Amino acid sequence: MAKVTLTVCTTCRRIGGGEPVPDEPRPGERMLQALGAVELPENVQLRPVECLSACSRGCSIALTGGPSRWTYVYGDLDPETHIEEILQGVSAYAQTTDGIVPWRERPQVFRKQSIARIPPQE
Amino acid sequence: MAKVTLTVCTTCRRIGGGEPVPDEPRPGERMLQALGAVELPENVQLRPVECLSACSRGCSIALTGGPSRWTYVYGDLDPETHIEEILQGVSAYAQTTDGIVPWRERPQVFRKQSIARIPPQE
Repeated sequence: MAKVTLTVCTTCRRIGGGEPVPDEPRPGERMLQALGAVELPENVQLRPVECLSACSRGCSIALTGGPSRWTYVYGDLDPETHIEEILQGVSAYAQTTDGIVPWRERPQVFRKQSIARIPPQE
Repeated sequence: MAKVTLTVCTTCRRIGGGEPVPDEPRPGERMLQALGAVELPENVQLRPVECLSACSRGCSIALTGGPSRWTYVYGDLDPETHIEEILQGVSAYAQTTDGIVPWRERPQVFRKQSIARIPPQE
């Protein structure tokens, strides 16, 4: 199966979609560091990006996995409390061929904090 | 260059991001019809999708163009007043190799109503 990419916006200034915080490193950078410090599911690579253009919904991430999988964008994430759920959701996504995880198997942050999804390019 | 796909959510019930309307056909379906009735830029294909999961920001569209282009999702669109600007923006996108149109060349709805962007998969 195609490799899955977990893209993390490192520019995000919000935590859980709240007001922007002046903290350095930024919440988005902290999200990247937190995800870089844990073991990712098999076949998943981490990628930083300077902006996912979802600034009002930070922290934000995107899940892609080749031309046959749906793409998902999630937001209002917290770099401290949501790491485990993100890993669960990414793992389930990586085990599909089309990117569609049955609703009940999605972690709550993926059910409730979806910003957009885009159908496969193929 | 890779073909560009303009994906239109046909389930959207909002116009310009306003309150959901009970109209049938739905605003998203009307957006699809409006874009299907005009001449699309060269190398651009139209594709309906049942949900882009951007329901609070309808009408919504996505722009994709192969593994080397950025993907963009736009929302708060109006199926009557925004068609011309969407066509301008799609045309400019289709003329790039990476999907990045210089800021000044983007139509206003693409500057102000971006929901998310996702980096190229390659």
